[in-house]
Amino acid sequence: MGTTARATSPRASVPPADARAAFRSGLDGPTAGWSDGRTQANLIAVPADWAYDVLLFAQRNPRPCPVLDVTEPGGVTTALAPGADLRTDLPRYRVWRDGRLVDEPTDVTRVWRDDLVAFLVGCSFTFEGALRGAGVPLRHIEQGRNVSMYVTGRQCRPAGRLHGPLVVSMRPVPAGLVDTARRLTALMPAVHGAPVHAGDPAELGIEDLARPDFGDPVEAHPGDVPVFWACGVTPQAALMASAPPFAITHAPGHMFVTDVPDSDYRVG
Amino acid sequence: MGTTARATSPRASVPPADARAAFRSGLDGPTAGWSDGRTQANLIAVPADWAYDVLLFAQRNPRPCPVLDVTEPGGVTTALAPGADLRTDLPRYRVWRDGRLVDEPTDVTRVWRDDLVAFLVGCSFTFEGALRGAGVPLRHIEQGRNVSMYVTGRQCRPAGRLHGPLVVSMRPVPAGLVDTARRLTALMPAVHGAPVHAGDPAELGIEDLARPDFGDPVEAHPGDVPVFWACGVTPQAALMASAPPFAITHAPGHMFVTDVPDSDYRVG
Repeated sequence: MGTTARATSPRASVPPADARAAFRSGLDGPTAGWSDGRTQANLIAVPADWAYDVLLFAQRNPRPCPVLDVTEPGGVTTALAPGADLRTDLPRYRVWRDGRLVDEPTDVTRVWRDDLVAFLVGCSFTFEGALRGAGVPLRHIEQGRNVSMYVTGRQCRPAGRLHGPLVVSMRPVPAGLVDTARRLTALMPAVHGAPVHAGDPAELGIEDLARPDFGDPVEAHPGDVPVFWACGVTPQAALMASAPPFAITHAPGHMFVTDVPDSDYRVG
Repeated sequence: MGTTARATSPRASVPPADARAAFRSGLDGPTAGWSDGRTQANLIAVPADWAYDVLLFAQRNPRPCPVLDVTEPGGVTTALAPGADLRTDLPRYRVWRDGRLVDEPTDVTRVWRDDLVAFLVGCSFTFEGALRGAGVPLRHIEQGRNVSMYVTGRQCRPAGRLHGPLVVSMRPVPAGLVDTARRLTALMPAVHGAPVHAGDPAELGIEDLARPDFGDPVEAHPGDVPVFWACGVTPQAALMASAPPFAITHAPGHMFVTDVPDSDYRVG
């Protein structure tokens, strides 16, 4: 996971199909700031006999795991982006065996299996357009970095063989805009909804904001408050804790860019 | 399904545990208007080997099938109402074999199976308090009737072996209040969210509002517009269409009254 994303308007205006084509061709880097206004998604693919556990884990933990689509076993396509191939169209993947990260390739065609069921899970990048539109600065994009993500001390509600801690993403938000950020994101429950916490990281069992578990450190400006949202990397933490024999996920911050307008996931 | 519910404030103020105790003792009738402010839920219990299909069907059809809780196989308790027993605490049930309704008892203890997984699905009764609070009249409660429900001509997105049509509930709403009803219910996606349609029933393939497929006919007042919400009876229509070997559901309108405040399911 490099710090290859930059705060660029050109990337923001790339159509999602072109973004996917670029990643398919090998372009690597976090997707924050790409294809503005289109929903991005976390990927987790597990053998079919683990699919019920994942889907139930998601139902029981809807804040970190809002499921946007589920493939048929062996399928590599999704209604969220007709024509896309889930094995190639993300910038970077992670391959897991027995709960251990064994590879981080930019293409998983070679290791994909016929019994894999893929889950696309809502991503907080989806609400960043709404935040920016309301004047909430996005420090990680300003700084050309991947968003900071942390494993918390809170356990998710387990489901079958799956258990693990809640993972959160953090954005530094000027104190006067925290309520705005809360109100806007509450209207997008399909992409994590309202923050789970704003303020003292210790409340979530996070010791040092400068050392995220995933992504990059992001610098706060004076007067910023750290605001934490449930994160779609939570299923990866569950993979580590629960050790299914095999799984494929996106690399944190390296999302699947769908065709779906962000506004489709806003209620009210 | 009788027309035993009446527009009573006493029922509205019954604590949910007492309502469940009354139903457990054999009291029968629709639950609209009971335990005001507490979430009501649809029940569908299927053998464990059908559980993934049901959960995936729900994920793919979140408007009619917002899942609020899922039990462990054989379990009869739920986090939504500690102390409750799902086999006895609903006023009336339906028992299904091979997609056919074979019994409609007030207690299913005798036919419950160790391999059943129970799904509790959000119910539009949950948002009726919000509607009433905004001055939207609830004709079915005024008339002491079960809400009207209709099988539509729209098919749900299938999942595994499960397929079937969308079922909707209908409430006559004064034309000037339709936008209010839409806005309020859009904020409650966990209990069906915004209406799927307002106006001409033919748009949904409904021929005659006076002949609902489930529940009772409800009389509109002059100036009322029929407003249709996705309905948690949709999984029952899928049972009829897809014919799993065995299933237990609530009887339409005869819901599970949970302890959860309605407001927990409102976003924003």
